[in-house]
This record gives sequence, C-alpha cells and structure tokens, in this order.
Amino acid sequence: MSDEITARTLWTGDYYNEGSGKEGLFDKLKEECGVFGVYRHSDAASLAYYGLHALQHRGEESAGICVSSGDEFHYHRGMGLVKEVFNKDLMASLTGDIAIGHVRYSTSGDSKLTNAQPLVFKYRDGDLAVATNGNIVNALQIRHELEQGGSIFQTTSDTEVVAHLIARSSKDLVEAAKDALKRIVGGFAFLIMTNDKLLVASDPNGLRPLTMGRLGDAYLFASETCALETIGAELLRDIEPGELLVLDKNGLHEDRYSEGKHRKALCAMEYIYFARPDSDLNGSNLHAARKRMGSQMALEAFVDADLVTGVPDSSISAAIGYAEQTGIPYELGMIKNKYTGRTFIQPSQELREQGVKMKLSAVRRVVEGKRVIMIDDSIVRGTTSRRIVNMLRDAGALEVHVRITSPPFKNPCFYGIDTPDRRELIASSKTVEEIREEINADSLYFMSAEGLIAAVGGYNEQDYKGGLCLACFDNDYPTQVDFKGEEKFGCSC
Amino acid sequence: MSDEITARTLWTGDYYNEGSGKEGLFDKLKEECGVFGVYRHSDAASLAYYGLHALQHRGEESAGICVSSGDEFHYHRGMGLVKEVFNKDLMASLTGDIAIGHVRYSTSGDSKLTNAQPLVFKYRDGDLAVATNGNIVNALQIRHELEQGGSIFQTTSDTEVVAHLIARSSKDLVEAAKDALKRIVGGFAFLIMTNDKLLVASDPNGLRPLTMGRLGDAYLFASETCALETIGAELLRDIEPGELLVLDKNGLHEDRYSEGKHRKALCAMEYIYFARPDSDLNGSNLHAARKRMGSQMALEAFVDADLVTGVPDSSISAAIGYAEQTGIPYELGMIKNKYTGRTFIQPSQELREQGVKMKLSAVRRVVEGKRVIMIDDSIVRGTTSRRIVNMLRDAGALEVHVRITSPPFKNPCFYGIDTPDRRELIASSKTVEEIREEINADSLYFMSAEGLIAAVGGYNEQDYKGGLCLACFDNDYPTQVDFKGEEKFGCSC
Amino acid sequence: MSDEITARTLWTGDYYNEGSGKEGLFDKLKEECGVFGVYRHSDAASLAYYGLHALQHRGEESAGICVSSGDEFHYHRGMGLVKEVFNKDLMASLTGDIAIGHVRYSTSGDSKLTNAQPLVFKYRDGDLAVATNGNIVNALQIRHELEQGGSIFQTTSDTEVVAHLIARSSKDLVEAAKDALKRIVGGFAFLIMTNDKLLVASDPNGLRPLTMGRLGDAYLFASETCALETIGAELLRDIEPGELLVLDKNGLHEDRYSEGKHRKALCAMEYIYFARPDSDLNGSNLHAARKRMGSQMALEAFVDADLVTGVPDSSISAAIGYAEQTGIPYELGMIKNKYTGRTFIQPSQELREQGVKMKLSAVRRVVEGKRVIMIDDSIVRGTTSRRIVNMLRDAGALEVHVRITSPPFKNPCFYGIDTPDRRELIASSKTVEEIREEINADSLYFMSAEGLIAAVGGYNEQDYKGGLCLACFDNDYPTQVDFKGEEKFGCSC
Amino acid sequence: MSDEITARTLWTGDYYNEGSGKEGLFDKLKEECGVFGVYRHSDAASLAYYGLHALQHRGEESAGICVSSGDEFHYHRGMGLVKEVFNKDLMASLTGDIAIGHVRYSTSGDSKLTNAQPLVFKYRDGDLAVATNGNIVNALQIRHELEQGGSIFQTTSDTEVVAHLIARSSKDLVEAAKDALKRIVGGFAFLIMTNDKLLVASDPNGLRPLTMGRLGDAYLFASETCALETIGAELLRDIEPGELLVLDKNGLHEDRYSEGKHRKALCAMEYIYFARPDSDLNGSNLHAARKRMGSQMALEAFVDADLVTGVPDSSISAAIGYAEQTGIPYELGMIKNKYTGRTFIQPSQELREQGVKMKLSAVRRVVEGKRVIMIDDSIVRGTTSRRIVNMLRDAGALEVHVRITSPPFKNPCFYGIDTPDRRELIASSKTVEEIREEINADSLYFMSAEGLIAAVGGYNEQDYKGGLCLACFDNDYPTQVDFKGEEKFGCSC
Repeated sequence: MSDEITARTLWTGDYYNEGSGKEGLFDKLKEECGVFGVYRHSDAASLAYYGLHALQHRGEESAGICVSSGDEFHYHRGMGLVKEVFNKDLMASLTGDIAIGHVRYSTSGDSKLTNAQPLVFKYRDGDLAVATNGNIVNALQIRHELEQGGSIFQTTSDTEVVAHLIARSSKDLVEAAKDALKRIVGGFAFLIMTNDKLLVASDPNGLRPLTMGRLGDAYLFASETCALETIGAELLRDIEPGELLVLDKNGLHEDRYSEGKHRKALCAMEYIYFARPDSDLNGSNLHAARKRMGSQMALEAFVDADLVTGVPDSSISAAIGYAEQTGIPYELGMIKNKYTGRTFIQPSQELREQGVKMKLSAVRRVVEGKRVIMIDDSIVRGTTSRRIVNMLRDAGALEVHVRITSPPFKNPCFYGIDTPDRRELIASSKTVEEIREEINADSLYFMSAEGLIAAVGGYNEQDYKGGLCLACFDNDYPTQVDFKGEEKFGCSC
Repeated sequence: MSDEITARTLWTGDYYNEGSGKEGLFDKLKEECGVFGVYRHSDAASLAYYGLHALQHRGEESAGICVSSGDEFHYHRGMGLVKEVFNKDLMASLTGDIAIGHVRYSTSGDSKLTNAQPLVFKYRDGDLAVATNGNIVNALQIRHELEQGGSIFQTTSDTEVVAHLIARSSKDLVEAAKDALKRIVGGFAFLIMTNDKLLVASDPNGLRPLTMGRLGDAYLFASETCALETIGAELLRDIEPGELLVLDKNGLHEDRYSEGKHRKALCAMEYIYFARPDSDLNGSNLHAARKRMGSQMALEAFVDADLVTGVPDSSISAAIGYAEQTGIPYELGMIKNKYTGRTFIQPSQELREQGVKMKLSAVRRVVEGKRVIMIDDSIVRGTTSRRIVNMLRDAGALEVHVRITSPPFKNPCFYGIDTPDRRELIASSKTVEEIREEINADSLYFMSAEGLIAAVGGYNEQDYKGGLCLACFDNDYPTQVDFKGEEKFGCSC
Repeated sequence: MSDEITARTLWTGDYYNEGSGKEGLFDKLKEECGVFGVYRHSDAASLAYYGLHALQHRGEESAGICVSSGDEFHYHRGMGLVKEVFNKDLMASLTGDIAIGHVRYSTSGDSKLTNAQPLVFKYRDGDLAVATNGNIVNALQIRHELEQGGSIFQTTSDTEVVAHLIARSSKDLVEAAKDALKRIVGGFAFLIMTNDKLLVASDPNGLRPLTMGRLGDAYLFASETCALETIGAELLRDIEPGELLVLDKNGLHEDRYSEGKHRKALCAMEYIYFARPDSDLNGSNLHAARKRMGSQMALEAFVDADLVTGVPDSSISAAIGYAEQTGIPYELGMIKNKYTGRTFIQPSQELREQGVKMKLSAVRRVVEGKRVIMIDDSIVRGTTSRRIVNMLRDAGALEVHVRITSPPFKNPCFYGIDTPDRRELIASSKTVEEIREEINADSLYFMSAEGLIAAVGGYNEQDYKGGLCLACFDNDYPTQVDFKGEEKFGCSC
Repeated sequence: MSDEITARTLWTGDYYNEGSGKEGLFDKLKEECGVFGVYRHSDAASLAYYGLHALQHRGEESAGICVSSGDEFHYHRGMGLVKEVFNKDLMASLTGDIAIGHVRYSTSGDSKLTNAQPLVFKYRDGDLAVATNGNIVNALQIRHELEQGGSIFQTTSDTEVVAHLIARSSKDLVEAAKDALKRIVGGFAFLIMTNDKLLVASDPNGLRPLTMGRLGDAYLFASETCALETIGAELLRDIEPGELLVLDKNGLHEDRYSEGKHRKALCAMEYIYFARPDSDLNGSNLHAARKRMGSQMALEAFVDADLVTGVPDSSISAAIGYAEQTGIPYELGMIKNKYTGRTFIQPSQELREQGVKMKLSAVRRVVEGKRVIMIDDSIVRGTTSRRIVNMLRDAGALEVHVRITSPPFKNPCFYGIDTPDRRELIASSKTVEEIREEINADSLYFMSAEGLIAAVGGYNEQDYKGGLCLACFDNDYPTQVDFKGEEKFGCSC
C-alpha cells in the first residue's frame, strides 16, 4: 500500500512522520485505534502501559490509561507515543486494579487532546470510562437526539454518545449498556469501566478484532494478541461478534447483547496490513497468513524475475512467501530508515529532486541490472507506488513487476479505517492496466478476493466471504451505512 | 499574610514555587481565578492573551482561551503560565472575533487539565464555552439532581453545572442562562460564549470583581482593570451585582437576572491582598487604598521604631502609607528573589538550617540594631510570620513590631478563595496575644474592621459593612452557605 | 535607565525578555556576569547553586557549576536561569568540596554554550577551571601571541587566554597565575580552581566587586554580598584591588600580584543600577545608597509636583529617597508585570499602537491630573525614556519631570558592561536640553558626579573620585584601553 | 550478538534504550561513530543532516554539524538523534558550502556534550574543525607530551590531540596534517575542515570504512555508502588506507601520508553487524554478504529443523541465506518492537518475571512445537543469548539451535568498537560446549574465520586474512597496541 505525502503540521511546525511502518511519506491507510483492558491485577496500569506499547502501531498520536482504585479513577492522556505520554511519576499515580487504555490516531491540538481516550465521565452511579476502537455509523443521528434532550458534549468522539446513552438509561449498568450497544450501528470493540466493573463488547459483525487473555487471576483484553504475548499472558480466545462480557466481583459473565442474524465480517485489512505479524487473528498467525498471501499471489500471477522484494515493513512476509513458492530469491531490494519519526526536517524541493530519500532507499547493488518483483499490500492513490517503482528503476532495476496482496481498494471504510474520499482512490476510477501505466510498472497484479480468502484460511473459510469484511474491495458492507444522508468515513473513536 | 511551605510535587519531581507574589514558601491564600472576555475584535485571541497575562497573578497553574469564528470554536488550554501555554502557532490557530479566557490555580496532572477553563461543550444550539471566577456553594446539590436526570460530567468544576442547566432548558439562551444563574448560590463572575453571543454575569452580591471596557468598537471584560489598561482599553464601569449583560449582533444589552434584596459584598481580600496595586475596585486604586490601610494602621496602632518595612510584594504599599503617616522612614528591610518559580531545587534540611534562603532575605545592614515595624496583609497559619520575624531578628533587628492590615482571619471562604481548614487558621483558636507569642513579635496588631472599611473608602462606605464581604473575619456570610450538609470551601472554578 | 527594544530571536522563534529588572523592552545596560566560589564545604555544589541563584540578576542567559572532588572535576553548564539549567539528578552528580560557579549574559546557540563558564580544561598538572566577571582589554593581543605559539582555542572568551597563560608557564600554579594576571589589563574578578586549590583575584583597580564570606569552616566568594546572605554565611570582607587569595590544604593565604600604583575604581554603575539593593558594596547597603542618591537629587534639582514615582525596579529606592527629602508623596505611578520573561509572544504592530503594554503600565488613577516626578537611573539611547514619559502623559499626567540618578552616560565601558556604540549613546551627542526635548519631559536633570560620589559615601569618599570608576560619564578610564587599535567593548567573560 | 541489560540512567531518570537495532536490552557492541563531509555544495548543512540521518545507526547519542561560510564557522552539536538535535531554525543558521558532521555514542551529561563532535577550534590560521570515527591507540602518550609543552585540553577526545599537533606545527596545513597522522597509531577515518579546505584521511590499515561520492560538482564523504544513496549522490570509490585527500579551491588532490607496508585490515564486524545492509563495503553489498554468511553457515553447520529465524534486525539477512541454502523455511520466530527507545519505563522485577517483554517477543504460533534454528551475529557476554533461547523455549520451541555468523569474540577492540573487559567476554574463558550449556541451546556453532572470509568475498579475498581485521577473534592486531602500558579500549572519537 502506498501513497503520497500527508503533510500534517504539528504545533512544533515540523513535519510529522509517524515513526513506524505506516508513515507519512507513504501515506498508508491509518489504523483506527487500539484498546487494552485489565481486570483485577495489582499492577493494572503497568500492564496497560506495556500492552499499549505493543499496540502502538494501531495509533501513534495519543495514548491514555484510566485506572479504577474502587473509590476513584486516576487517569492520564496525552499526545504522542505511549513512552512519551507517560513517565514514572505519572505511572506511580495510576493506582488501582482495573484499567483500560487506548492508543489512537488523531491530529494535534488541544481540541483533539480532548478527544484522546479513554473518555472519563462522572454520572449518577459514580465514574465511567470508555475506550473504543472503530466507528459508529449512526453516531450523528443519536447525538442530535441526545442534544435535543439537553445533553452536552465535550468531544467530537462517537464514544461519548455511548456514555450518554448509558447515563440516561434508568436501567442498571449492564442493561443500559446492552440498550446502548443495540442502538449503535458500526464496527467497534468497546471497553467500559466503572468503579468496580469492566464491560467488554464487540460489534454484531465482529468487524474489529478483540481478544481475551489471562495472567494469574487477572483477565486481559486487547485489540491484538501480540499485546498479551508481550506481557506474558495466556491467550484465552477472541471476543465473539455481539458478545458483551461483564467482569465484576463475581468474576467473568459471558453475555450477549445482539442475537440478530449478522454475518461474521472481520476487517480484511487487519489480515493484509494492520495487525502485527506476530499477532494471531482467529487462530491464524499473521506472518504465516501473509506468507500464504505471497504464495497464493505466486500461483495467481507468476512472473519470471531475478529477485523478489517487499515494501518494508508490511510486505516482507508476503515477499518471502512469494519467493519460497517460486524459488526466486528473496532480496533486500529497498531499506527503510528506522529513525524517521516526528520532528524530522523535510528536504527542500531542490534536494528532493536531487533524490534525497529520508525514509526508503533502494539498494542499488541488489537491484541493479535485475528484474524485480515488488510485493506491496495495497494501492490507495497510486502516487507512492509510482515513486517506489521509479526509485527501483533509478537504482538500475531492468523490470519492476508489482504484486499487490489485496484486491483493488475502491470503497471507503465506515468501520474505523481512515480512507480518503472515493475519488482519490485510484482503483475506483481506473482499470488495472491504467494503474499499471500510472505507477510505471512492467506488470501489475491485484490478488483475487478468492485467493485472499483462501490465504487467510482458518475456521472461517466456510463462512460467507470467509468471515471477512471485503467492503473496501467489493462494496458489500455488512451493516446499513446510510443514516439520513450522514455518511461517516473513517474512525471516530 | 504568611504561612508555611506548601510542598506540591509536580511530575517533574521538582518543588513548585509558583513564581510571583504568592508563592509556596509563604503559603499565601490562593486567588481563585481570572477571566477575560472580548466581543467583536478581529484580534480577539491576542487581546485575551495579553489580558490574561495581566491577570496572571490570579491564577498561575493553567490558562486557556476559546475563540468563536462564528461557525466553530477554536481553543487551547494548558498547564502553566500564559506565556508557557501559548506559542505563536497556537495563537495563529485561534481565529475569531469573540473570545473568553481564563487563568486558574489547580494542581497538576491530566485530570486537572480537564478542569482547565474555558470549558467547551457542544449542545443543541451549537457550541458553548464557559469561564468563571468564584465558587458555587450549592453546586453538588444541583449536580446530583442533574445526574439523576442522566447527565454525565467530564470535570469536577462547578462551572460544568451551569452549562448543563442551560443545555437542559427548553428556553432560549438568555432565559436559560437567567434560570441557571438564579439556581446557583455563591460568589462568581461568569463569561458564557456561544457561536455568536457573549453573556456576562456577576453574582447577586457582587462578591467577585468584574469590569467592562472598550477598545474601538469592541467590548472587553476582565476580572481587574489592570487587564484593560494593559491593552490600552478604556474603562467603562464595573459589572453590578445580579447583572446579566448580553452581547450579540445588536450590540450590548444590559439586563438583570436577580432582583432580590442582596447586600453588596465585594470580597475584602481583593482590596487587602489579591488585586494588583494598579487595578481599581469601585473606582479606588488599590495601591492608594493600601497606603490608606497603612495610614489607618498607624492611627490605630502607632509604635515608635527606627524603620517601617513591608513583606514584599503585597505589603509594600501599606508600609509606605504607615511610614508617611508616622514619619518613620520606609526601608527595604527584606528583599524577595525574583527568580523563584517552578522547578527550583529545595535546599536540604541541613542547608535550610544553615540559613539558605531561597525566596526572601532580610537586609542585614538595614535592620541591624534597629527597631523594625513589619507590615503584612494577613496571618493564615502563623508559621511563615514566625519565620520572617525570626529572620529579621537573626539579621540583627532589636525589636519587631508586626502590623497586619486585615482583621484576624478566622473563617473559611466559600466564594472562591482557597483557604485551609478552620482548625488550621491560627486566629480561629488563639488570641492576638497568643499569636504574638507564637510568631515571636514584640507587638502585634490586626486592623479593625471599621478601619479597613474606612481605608477602602469609595462610594460604598455608606453601605452595610462598606459594601464588603468580611465573612472570613466576622463569619457574616452574605449568602446561604449550608446545603444539605455540603460545605464547599475554596474555589471550584 | 531606559531604552528601546532589543529584539533577539531565540531558536524557539520567540522574543526574549530576560525576565527581571533588566529586560528587553527597556534595553537596560547588561550586567556582565556573576561568580561564586566555595572552598571546602561538603555541599559545595548546592551552595554554589543557591549563591548563583542570588546573583541571577547579573546574568540570566547561561549558568554553570564546576566542582572538584579531588581526583576529578564534575561540571554542568547550560543556557537559561540557574533553576532551569540544573535539576536534582544533575546536582547529585556534582560531588566535591571545592566549587566555582558562574552566571552570564550571552546569546543563544551552541557556539555560545561553548562560551558558558566555568571553562574547564585539562593541563599538565590535572584539571583547571576558570570563572570570571569582567573584561580583559588586551585579550586579543595576547591571544594572537598564543596562537603563534601553537595554542588552539575552543571559545571566544577572554577567560581562555588566562588558562593558556597558566598552562604554558613553567612555574608553579600560584606564580604562573600571578604572571598571567600581570599580563592582562582590564576589570575582572577571577576564580581559578584546580583539583585541590582555589585562587581568587581582583583586578588592580578593583573595578568589579568581589567579596569573601565564611560558613562554618568553608570560605565563600561572591560577586555580591546578597549571595552570602542567601546561604546564611558571614560576610568577612571585600577582595582588595590587586589581591590574589590562595586556598589550599593549609588554608587561606592572602597574597598580591600587583603592587603598582593603581587608583581604586569600583564601577559606579554597580552602585547606581546593577547590584541588588540588599547587597553591600564597600560596607554600604545599596538600597540605602540609592535612597541617598534620591535625596541628593532632591537637593540638586528640586521641582514642585504632586507625586514622585520610580521606574521599577531599579529606581524605586531613589524615588523613595527623593520623596522623603522633599515631602512630596511617593506613589506607584507605574507597575511592572512580573511574569514577563522568555517565550513571551510580542503584540502585533497594530496592537502595540493600540497601546498593549506587556511589561510596564502607568497607573492611571494615580497619575491622572498630577504633576509627576519620574526617577530613573540612566538614559542610554533615550527611546525608552520617551516611551515611559509618553505613557505617563497618556495616563493623564499633567507634567513629567525626569530625574536621572547618574551623570549623562557618554562613553563605552571596557570593563564588562555591555554598552552600545558611542554613537548610539544619546548623551554623547546631545545636550541635556536636547535630550529633554527628545524624551518629551517637562524638565530633566542628571545627577552631578560630585553628588553621586557624596551619595555613595563610605570610606572611599576621600579617594580620587570617591574610589569610583566614572569613565562612562567622564571618559577618565583607570587603565590603558587602546592596544594596537583593538578596542574591546563590553563583557567577554 | 546478544547480551545483558546496560542500565544507563539519563538525567530524566529513565532507562535508555537507544532506539534501533542495537539497544540496551540486548547490549549489542556499540558502533563507534559516523562521519559525513561535504565540499562545496550550496546546501552543505542539509546534505550533512540527511547523510548523518542515514548513518544514525553508527551513533545515536550525540550529533553535530559544522559548516564553513569562508569567513567563519557555524556549528551546532547536541545530545540525541539527528532529528532531535537539529531544527529548522538551527539548520537555517548553518550557512556555508563546506561541512563536516558526526554522530556518536557517548554517555550523557554536559562533560560529554563537550566531547560531541565536530570539535571546533580557533588557531593561528583561523578556524579548524575535526570529526573522526575510530580510536587512536597512542593518544594518551601524545597528550602527555603536549601537556608538558603547555597545551590545555577541553575534551577527553583523542581527536583533540590531532588538532593540537596541527596547530603546533610550523608547516603548512597539509604538511602539518601529514605529520600529525604519522604520529598517531590506530584505526580512524578523519575529516578536517578549515575555512576553505577539507582534508580526508583513513588510517594506514584502512580499519574504518570511509567512502567518497559526488553530487553535481560537490564531493561527499561518508562512513557508509548508504548515506550517499540517501542523498542521491553517485558513489565514486572507497578511501584507501593511508590516503590523505585534500579539497581546496583547485579541486581534489589525491595524496598519501603513509607509504609504509601495512596490511589492509577492514573491521570484520562492519561486515557482520555494524554497517547497514544496504551499504556496500569494498564493492560488496552487506545484505548479500550476510546472506552468504548464512549460506556458508549452513554448509559448515547444517542441522535438521522446522524453521530458521534470525535475531532482528541484524541477523535477518543471514537467516534468509541459511534458509535458502538448506530449504528449511525462513519464519518470523520473534519480532522486535519498533517503538522502543529513550525514556521507556522499565517493567518492575515482578512484571519482568511474569514475562513482560518490552523489546523482543517470540511468535508463539510460529515456534510452538517446532525445532528452531536461531541465527545471531555474535555472542558477547552470553546473557542475552540465554534469554532469547529461553524465550523461544517458553513459546513452545522443541529445540533451539544457535548459529553465530562470526567466530568467538575473545579480544577487545582497540579501533573504535566499545567492547567490554576481556574477562566479560564469554568466549575468552569458555569452550563452545560450555557456552552452549550456558545459553541453554541444543546446539551451538560459531562461523569459522575461513568461512567468514569466503562469505565476505570481494576483491580482497586474496589478501592476508581477506583484507579483514579479525583481531577480536584471533588476537592478531594489525597495529602496535601497547604504548607504555596504556591500553586503550573502544572508541575515543
């Protein structure tokens, strides 16, 4: 996946490369958020800290942790990476044994710090904190209704809507939460904390990943399994679509708020690009799944060449799979500079034209005079793909064959992924051949949906579309998406 | 006014001296807050910035500005001084021609940043921002009622209560605001901003100061006149108790929300200590008023001595007045280090015993062998007074006669001043003679209430108690203060 | 003293007001530096820290402390105030019982951090650190000679010259230091530290102040006595012109390096403006001396008026003296905002014209309709005086009579004070009447040199010119100042 | 390569993981430094900035750039990454067309900032700046001689010695530099800049890499070719052992200062571990060379297993080579968290025991039930290897076979690599079998020296020991290393 510079001006006045596999120069799709929950561990805040650190790739712009010590909440939120937002003194102040945490993408500025999660409220029954990953499609509609009833909002986050729905209910917390979850439509993983309870919910289609683990007597919840592994916890299972788990002094209660007929539809881009390669989704390791995507790609679109290379970091696994399947050697055809990140000074236009490459360099001695197969995970606008292909050519590649491990990305996501307007999505208006020409490749192939489903594999293979949401490829959204004309894109957590 | 170390640990791990005339080592009473409003000036945010800078002494721990550009609000709030919280890029982003700003005391940490004002909300009719100085005595009671009705709160600030009352009302903004202001009891100056209006209100007793000025076509509102002077604005008049001013596209509407019989009761400590000496209250310049307090003190409690000195900075004016009245020369008997402030490293116990003085030093060559009259504005706990008296003695003073320009401080304030528990107020349990002994003075005198009223002067002299609130001295509170057992001290803005 | 804006852009892009009595908007003459030394105290670094804090007004732009633990030096230097440059961890690392410290004016940037003192070197006999206050007039000449001999320099500081002279000598440390001090011409206070010794020297004319104190068994040295008072030390005496004190394991040795006939010539501006009012010079308290200057001024240039006011902070003492002498009341005619300092955002030109006053405001209610006597300490370029006079008139003053407690400032200082080029000194080209017109005053008077000498008083009154250097007023420099055409202005410490 | 925690406390009080492939938790050998030079490019400072950014892995603790604008030098140095040390304003101030830059490892604190390079001096002929990578073995001896001659030193860096030697010489710059380079013994790459010249030199054995490129008319010099590629420059050639290049207004002069018989001896660890995989050394791409090391390892020490995995990031290439050679699949058996770096909070002992893994996690689903071949580049102390092996076992690996792509590391480096004391090097006292037991591996194999030479390949294969320095493995140092008993380890640049 590859596209043009996202110039976001921070208050420091500096350009912001986000510092990992999904940076500015390559304008990758932005993951929406990551959540982490702890129920009853004496060191709850620290576990949340390390867990969020492991989920950092899901959101690099703000981080927050809220802990309940029974009587009161202690929390801190800030702009930046987990390691930047927290320090020893702050951590020491976060005492308590229930915790929820959040990492998120957002733009800078105080008004957006206000949106940093977990959101924390006082309501009739005490304290209430909410952290979520995903997007509520009918949030504006509900919000308008609430405002007519006299509610005031401090954030622009959809998450606040759910807190209001709970607070306004005359039922007890669990019933109020069920009512609220039933009202909302979208893709989401929810952690809701009160002074003595933790509620955990997934949307009815299971669009966003959410998993449960155990460390001693404590229960843990995380957007990805890598966060459990990082803290040495045992993986129990994934949260099911429509589930509502309640943790209170009597332990874990497995409940549901949605009994309707909803297809299982886990976001395919989690498999293709977002989730960390050492995470498991539905029992499948992501690195292995991506290698299978590479193998599948080799079966679908073999081309003879001298070497296979992957756009780092997300396409390395697929490239190795392609190489293993074809016997063409995997080589390091390009390398990413690890030190990019916030506050880097951008080269002047002149220097950029002279070829100053801050983030990704071709390895001349590897690609010179070679026919190169370049594996990437997606094409959004096409500009970055073109840039990479040309960089390989400038470094002497004789041919560049591009293989994309996803079908053409044509439709916006309504479930938590920050996608550009449909008109900017190159695949929504151009044919594969036109895209090939645009990115200056010798050949171009997009994975078939069937191949993708097969490569993902797992026990969902027999489900409708393999249990995946492929809406960004095939326009088949698993939920209603149009509410009184409001069309909400991207992530609003 | 003088008392013991308030050791507050910031997250930097360093001791926090707040950096001006009211620092930690001397544990002065804390002013509650300062507010500043602008209606229709193209540079509204900048005016708020300079205005708040002039009000910085009223709150050094957080600062915020919210500006309306008609369609939307732009705001920024942060911990620290005005000059630290804002920078050029932030200021440039605060576009619009209506603004409200706030400086405030609070403790550090994100949960308290959340309390930083102006509070900003979305409600049925758009955006709503509120900044206030003061305290609402029945806030908890109202809050409980609102929570029962399903409201959720994001802050612990009383101010949020008022926003909820307005949002819940089915009346138009002005009527809703009047209803809300009628519901609350306390001492407060309120600035309420919507996308196109500014509302300005003072409590029915006029406990907290609030003044109005004009700069070209723009209206300005400030806690003290010095903020108007700083930006070159013309002073129009003080806001009257019970007034509600409404500024909208038709200009200024002078209205009232309270017609009840309320005595005028402006906080006496504003005269004695809080307000800047170059501000006017009720048409009286504060420096001049404090000089009169010094003169009055000389009339009430003359003592023969070699020199008069004032505890800097707040008691310099009174000391000069005392000197002028008596003919005893005013001398610089002690000096305050200007560079104190946050992050200063505290001396070790050993060094402290060796006499390391970070903040205030006696001027040995001035006081040595002399009989000293030391003027101060109040005694809270007594420990700092004792420390200063002893410092003067160590520097060779033969006698130290303490003159306090306020009556004994015996009762907590419910209207926005951060006072310690009644048991910690030395004057609530000890006689003047006992206090004199405790602070090791040769003589001690507290100003009489009558003398204070006479010195303050102005057109209110004929009013009940000179139009002043003297409750902290005489326990005669101008409002009901007990609501279902809730006794709220200090400032909750 | 008063003059125009010094706009210096820091790397933060913000304007830099230095934060105390000598800030940018008023372009006061800059003090050169302050030094502090400790010999044999277990908490040497902490004493240096508090001592430098008390000397902060002598240099706000960098600070440094170097400590000897016998075997090695530990040091830290940085840009900013003492409290900003050091923190607890850094202080904890500065172990040892001999220390020298320094505060200094300089411009920002690494190349200037390099100039921050103490300068620290390794030489034949171990470690060597030097801190100085003042200026060496023939430094460039010596430097050229040393470079011809193969020396390399890392700073542009004159102080480095002295270290080279010592290192190049084949004599022992004390003799080498004497030779070096004899070679240099200028005004300076020197602290030189080796692994086990401390050397303390003053120039042959005693141009810069330097004083000695005692705390338990430890000896202390400071540019001003206020630093001794701050740490609870006993004042012993001032260092004499031409003295070289040597402190080693055998204690204090009082020696001299200069026996020539040099007039005693302590910088008059230290009395008039630089030194803190609670410091003593030659046994005279500065506040008292400045009050005498005010009285003397009243005798020399009485004018009938309604009030006397002083430009804060430096002229408050003199204004009180003038008021006492004449019986005209001292009033707070203007007030300085305490919160100015680095990173403050400057008002736009438009707002400045509207009268936004960041630093100094007239107190309208005090001066309105009054004839005002305004006391200031000096006039450098005249622009700021004009601005203040006009500000008083704008606030309604009927007449403004300016009284300056120094003679006209006509000549640059070669001994450590940062003065502008002679052509910019208004008094070097204009008559008093022309200056009066330029600054828009109703009358203007400069103190006579005789009056100044009388007001300073002390045991030096019988000395030539009262033991003062008045060169900036009368062009009578106490040393040779022209070396091969090199004319070095200001401070190079 | 793998070893125990290096807990270094920064002044922030936080643990310092350096943020890339060579972090604290794994205590990799520290690269010594990186240098970058520009001769005559209008944007010299920017090129140095981007070049140093590409060399960041060679030194993460300080960075500096010095530029000559003809008349004067402009420079900035600071602690931290290139992107942290510089900002736009600083870059804008670095005007000129000749530049040298430096990145370096060092410990924090001002005394070490002083050591940050480029070192900048003033000497007889103007300005002089020096940046170096490597170590001078006889530096102390020369330093003592210079000190006897009256030289003073401001740093503890060997580099300063060379500046003194040049300044003390009566010859012209080039001859003086030749004399100085002849005096020193060690491994080094030198960049020396004056107001109008740039000198470039490599030690007589060519121990440290240094390469030359061209961008338009400008000449560029860099420790590694990746820095040239990053800025779009053409690679010309590597600097030869004993060369001294002089760039002045007449262009490039290729000269030599050493004609003696010295074996070519480029540091083998550059091939094995330090240099970036996209750099070339002697015309060999490093990724390719490391793949050959993996293949060679497979030939030398095949073992049957289910998968091959490499310790990220440095051993990925070798692991892929091993997999290709053997047909055993390459898998992602462990993953490194990209967000580690300075200021991360370390887990408590208890949490560490519970298995919190901040930096490296095993991928359970990949290794569970599998026989794993783990490729690493070296073993220093052995503790980290043991930790990784155990982590793989905890994640379910049945067998762990460790393959190290270097011979046993037994001897300290004198040429710029920061190695622990010989007694801490596990291979200097234990047999391979004992090490295997210590690290808990099922089998362990170290690459043979012959295999390493063959894998490195290139045109040097026929040279003595393949043109490599293997002293850390075989104790055969290419230079004299003992000078009057001084044994200098590691890097002193």
